[in-house]
Order: sequence, then C-alpha cells, then structure tokens
Amino acid sequence: MSETDFPTVDSRLGVTAPRGFRAGTAACGIKASGRPDLSVLAAHAAVPAAAVFTTNRVTGAAVRLSREHLGRRRTMRGVVASSGNANTCTGEQGQADAREMLRLAAGALGCEAEALLLAQTGVIGRPLPMEKVRAGVPQACAVLADGPDADAAFAEAILTTDTRPKQAGVRLDLAGRTVTVAGATKGVGMIEPHLATTLGFLTTDAAVAPDPLQAMLARAVESSYNALTVDGHPSTSDTVVLLASGEAFAGAEAVAAGSPEAEALERALSAVCADLAYQIADDAEGGTKVVVVRVTGAATDGEARSAARAIANSPLVKCAVFGGDANWGRIVSAAGAAGITSGPETMRLSLGGVTVFEAGMPVRTDADRLARVMAGHDIAVHLDLGAGDGEARCLTCDLSPDYIRINAEYTT
Amino acid sequence: MSETDFPTVDSRLGVTAPRGFRAGTAACGIKASGRPDLSVLAAHAAVPAAAVFTTNRVTGAAVRLSREHLGRRRTMRGVVASSGNANTCTGEQGQADAREMLRLAAGALGCEAEALLLAQTGVIGRPLPMEKVRAGVPQACAVLADGPDADAAFAEAILTTDTRPKQAGVRLDLAGRTVTVAGATKGVGMIEPHLATTLGFLTTDAAVAPDPLQAMLARAVESSYNALTVDGHPSTSDTVVLLASGEAFAGAEAVAAGSPEAEALERALSAVCADLAYQIADDAEGGTKVVVVRVTGAATDGEARSAARAIANSPLVKCAVFGGDANWGRIVSAAGAAGITSGPETMRLSLGGVTVFEAGMPVRTDADRLARVMAGHDIAVHLDLGAGDGEARCLTCDLSPDYIRINAEYTT
Repeated sequence: MSETDFPTVDSRLGVTAPRGFRAGTAACGIKASGRPDLSVLAAHAAVPAAAVFTTNRVTGAAVRLSREHLGRRRTMRGVVASSGNANTCTGEQGQADAREMLRLAAGALGCEAEALLLAQTGVIGRPLPMEKVRAGVPQACAVLADGPDADAAFAEAILTTDTRPKQAGVRLDLAGRTVTVAGATKGVGMIEPHLATTLGFLTTDAAVAPDPLQAMLARAVESSYNALTVDGHPSTSDTVVLLASGEAFAGAEAVAAGSPEAEALERALSAVCADLAYQIADDAEGGTKVVVVRVTGAATDGEARSAARAIANSPLVKCAVFGGDANWGRIVSAAGAAGITSGPETMRLSLGGVTVFEAGMPVRTDADRLARVMAGHDIAVHLDLGAGDGEARCLTCDLSPDYIRINAEYTT
Repeated sequence: MSETDFPTVDSRLGVTAPRGFRAGTAACGIKASGRPDLSVLAAHAAVPAAAVFTTNRVTGAAVRLSREHLGRRRTMRGVVASSGNANTCTGEQGQADAREMLRLAAGALGCEAEALLLAQTGVIGRPLPMEKVRAGVPQACAVLADGPDADAAFAEAILTTDTRPKQAGVRLDLAGRTVTVAGATKGVGMIEPHLATTLGFLTTDAAVAPDPLQAMLARAVESSYNALTVDGHPSTSDTVVLLASGEAFAGAEAVAAGSPEAEALERALSAVCADLAYQIADDAEGGTKVVVVRVTGAATDGEARSAARAIANSPLVKCAVFGGDANWGRIVSAAGAAGITSGPETMRLSLGGVTVFEAGMPVRTDADRLARVMAGHDIAVHLDLGAGDGEARCLTCDLSPDYIRINAEYTT
C-alpha cells in the first residue's frame, strides 16, 4: 500500500474520538517532576483488541503480562499505561506489581484483570513506587471521560522525554457509516536516562473481529513503527495496541477481512500509524531533521529493507544530514555494505529529487538547489538499486551533538 | 585461539623488520597538506601473498584491481599505496589510472604490473591527480630502503585523518630460526570528509606457501580487524595484505599447514593484527576510550558475534561510555535485540570485572570501584549469556561530540 493512497490525518482527533472510549489520567508521583504519569484508556465493554510488542529478548513486566492476557482472550476492556518507570529488569516483584496494577484498575472499571493490557516506559532496573501507583490507578479511573480534553490529557500523560504530545486520527465513510480511527503515541529515542521506548494507543469505532484486526495492525505497523529508527537500539517496552469498539456499526456485522471496507479501514489505520511514527521521528532526541529513506529497484523487498535500514542507521549519514552535507558517498557505501546483490553501476541516488549519483559515479548537480534541499527540515533520500522490484522505506532523524549530550551526561 | 596465547608485540618493528622487504615513500601532492601520500612496499622477489578486502559492494578501483591480480597469481613483488584520494566511484578512468600506477611501479621495480597490489584511501568520487601520481610512483621506488626510518616513513605515508602512525611486530623462534612478523596500518573511522577505510600491510620473513598464508591471514583478521567497529559503516577500500619473503628460512622448506611452526606463526600474526586493530580503535575519530566487548555463554559463536557487535555499535552504549556511565540497561537491551535465543534471566554482565547485572536484575555494586572502571581509558565489557559455549569479541570506541563535529562540519 503506497502512502499516496492514505487519507489525510487530523491532529485534533485523539484516542476518544472514536465512539465507545474514555480516557483518564493522574499524576501519582512516579515522575519526580510531578507531571501526569498514569493513564487509563477504557472501552465501554470488552472489545476486539490487537497488539504488537517489542522483539527484544529483554522485556518489561508489562510486555510479558500483556502478552499473557492476549494469549488467553482476544477482547479487552482497556489499557493501563504508566510513564517514568519501565518496570523492566525488576524480577518477580516487578511482575507482581504489574499484576496488582491491573487488579486495581479492574476493580475500578468492574471487569476482570485479564481483560486489561499494561504498557510502561521509563527508567529500568528500579522497583515501581507501588504506594504511589496504588493511589494513582483508581484516581485515573475516577476521571474517565471522552472529548478533546481527555484526548489531550491522555497524550500528555504517556510521555517521558518527549517534548510534545503526539496524536492523530482519520474520519472516513465506511458503507454509509462515519468511522473514526485515532491514536496517541510517545517515543523520541530514549526515555529518562535509559532506553528507547515507543508506545502507541490506537482506537476505532469500526466493528472488526480480533483476527482481521490483528492482521490489519501488524501490516500498518510494518510500514510505520517498524520502519522507524532513531538510533538502531530496539527497546524493551515497545507496545502498540489497537482497540475496536464497533460503536459506529450499531450492532451491524463486523468488517469482513478482504472487503473494500476492510481495505479502507486499513488505509485509515496506516495513515494514523504513519503520522504517529513521523511525529516520533520529528521529536527524536537531539534530532533537528526528519529523513525519509526510500530504496527501490532492489532484488527483493528484504534487500531493500536491509539497505534502507543501513542508510538510516549509519552515524556517518546522520552526521552528514545534520551538517547539511549532500554526502552521496556515505549513502551508497552504507547500502553497498548491507548485503545487497547489485553494485554501484546500476545505482541511482537522489536527494530531495536532485540526482547526485548515477552509473557508479557522482553527477554534476545544481549546487544551490542541493544546498536548499539539505537545508530543509525533511530530507528525502531515494536510492534506486536498478536490480529488481524490491522496495522499502525507512524513517529516521539526523545525529546532533545534543543526542550525545542527552545520552552521555546522565548517570544512573 | 585466545588472546592470552598471543606473544608480546614490539611497536619498534615495522614492515621492513622481517628480512627481504624495503619501503619507500613520496609526497607527490595528492594530499593538499603536502604530507607524504605515496608509498611502496617491495619484496626482493615475487613472494607468497595473501590479502582480504572489504565486503562492500561499492569498491574502489584499487580493490578491484588487486582482486584481479590475486586471482591470476599467488606470489607478489609488492604493494603500492596512496592516501588522500580513494579512487572510488571514479568510473573507467579510475580503473585506468589504477592500472597506470602499477605499470609505473612495475617499470621502476623491474617486475610485471600484475605482480603488484594497490591500496588507496581518501576522498571518493574525485579523479586521481595523475600528473602528480606519475611523478610520485618512481620517486617512492627510488628511495626504497629497510630499517626503522623506512618503517616509520611507510607507516606515516599511508595515514589520512589518523593522528599517529600505527605499527607492530613480533620476533619469534621457529624451529631454531628467528622469524619476524610485522605490519603497519591506518584507519580511525573515516578519512578526509568521506568513508571509513582501513588498510593493513603485513610482512614476515617466514616461508609459507600462498594457500596456508591466506588461511592464516583470514583467521588472524577475523579476530582483529573484523572484530573492530568504529561506527558500523564498512568502507569501500578496506584491504589487509600479508607478504611472506621466506628469507628467514634460507631456502629451507616452507612452514607446513597444521604444523606447530604454523601455529606459532599464526599466533604471532594474530598478535600483530590484534595490536594494529587496537591502535585503530585507540585513534578512532572523536573517540576518547577503547571498549572491548566480550560475549560468552551464547548458544552459538554466531549469536555471540551478533550480540557483541550490537553492543559495540549501539550509539546509546557508546554515549554512556563517553559519559562514564555504567549503563547496564543499554548493554543488556542491545544484546536482547540482537537475535539471541537466551533471555535476561541467565545473563551476567560485568564492567571492568565488576558484576552489574545478574539473573534478570541489576546487582548492588561498589559505586566507587565502578566509577573508577568507567573513568579508565580501556573499558572491558563482559556479557555472559548463560546459554552455551559460543563466544565472540568486539573492539570499539566511545561516541563523543567530536565524532559529530568531524563528520558534520565537512561539506563535499
């Protein structure tokens, strides 16, 4: 699915914009700053849920517990999220604390604990301050509401070192029904002094059964969150959750997999995910520019992905972008080292639409135009390998001294 | 072969310390600075040669020509090296220029051009200044000599952004004969404004046939050069060459593969390669510390390599080392994301011998001792995965704002 098929997103639509959801937050003191750090997103009933988690072998207690719950049931009442402490590498106590959090929320919401998912980011290796969390969970449940203020509060409470909240939504017409897909996310590279962590919370009021919902989410995440790299360091807490309330369908049959409605809904979901991933790249730690790397003409999609990721993760390429340097050599050599089968003779590289390398050699270019491209905020890197039909896309940011300042000056 | 088996290296021994080699250099003007930029290393006759090259699909003309020559013959008279211009992405003209350089050297040395190898590093995408090179090649050949001054001049002339020359050698007794293995190298991350490039020139006066020589070099490089990463960006020009004059054997039979002599020689070669690789990490662009990452207890050596490389290439880990932060979380999570099969429960991590993480949780440590470890110049990271016998080692440096300054402020 190409991005040009995507509907336009609306940043005013947050997690409760789809009907059937409420959100509540609290500032219970997990964050030393006193900012909101506990949030609850609740559907009116248990609804089809889908989720994807980090592939890191080191995972937080929340990821393990959420996986366990989703392994037992495919409908969920909601998600509890806390920020400021990732509850990762905290042993048996951490696992017990995670369970207690969901038991408390289940009590307040009147559902079973296993009908809830948990997402946590922040410092790792430190015990959760449970006396604070025990107060915060019911407090957040007590203020559940829908509407723009609830959306904004939720988007705010999930943040850690992010400099701004990130939400996006799409309204679409699905066979005569107005359906909304929306979400909020956090990220920006690393959080507190520790680990890169991304959380995404997505909602829709379309009616979709759990299996097609999970498939839809997996595909939407593949081209958005999974195509995003800030520093090539996958986190221990990454979680993206999608809940489908079905309220826009008023009891009508759920969207069938493979139907035109499912495709339209998936385009909307992909647009929301792509926009949220862009907002993370745009707020990346120490980042000053967003870089979209597109690799086409690869022998396979796998080779294209490998080349795109190698370019996006190369510190040399990222430093060049920071310095405004149209350094084609670093880009083609990063691709060349990524296990591709084609050589430089068939490559063609353009930066912001200006061809800079072709047929194994640099191309004489309009230096002023190229300087304008590199001075921009969004840098479009397009490398065609000239070998086949494989393609991939990767989203990243530049590498600035601020990244090092942020990540070197902390001590744990 | 563990490093504790390695003989001690002597930094006073350079490429002409083994008998049968001479070196000559010239400053022909490839480098704008006027510093020496053309060098020739010549054996007294065509001798067994072994070489390993970059695996990048984008390669310089020198790499392609040297591969071609080694495909035709296994004995070589010598190596010509130039620095300041990598002759990469220079098309047909670059290939013709490379051939002409070796023809000129062959004329001066009285051998066939295909009995010579070529190594070039520097700016990419710019034509070689052939009028200067044409003067420089015979000039370097005219001053061929052996001894410490010739060694020092050679080690100097191959450098680009390196801040100091790098050489090392080992003297050993091989069945009653005194044999020397020595070498010079360059590296430091990137050169001029462009690409990471490593060159290594190794010599020995032992008699070894081409096949066992190549096998010996491949193994020695695997645990030294191939275990080195400054910024995870493999170059287009990497070349390590080993020439064996046999002069210490005075016509006696060459070392047989698998013999105790071959093993002793390989240990000496491995020691020289390991020392040269260390010198590159120690002079890495923007680097202030050397980090030795050792991963043991992996399910396979491949998993250990993958985990060690992920740790060594993580910008988060490198920033933490720069900041003197004993950030165990970044290290175990980098390993966790590297496709390993074991989880955090069986991991044990130590920094400079101090255990900081065990059984899935951080370990309470002596903070003063840990601070002293992190304040040191050499940081030993040892992660045991507790799963099997696989192990690997990786050498890297930290990431400082100077790296970004060096790589962002240049424009091409």
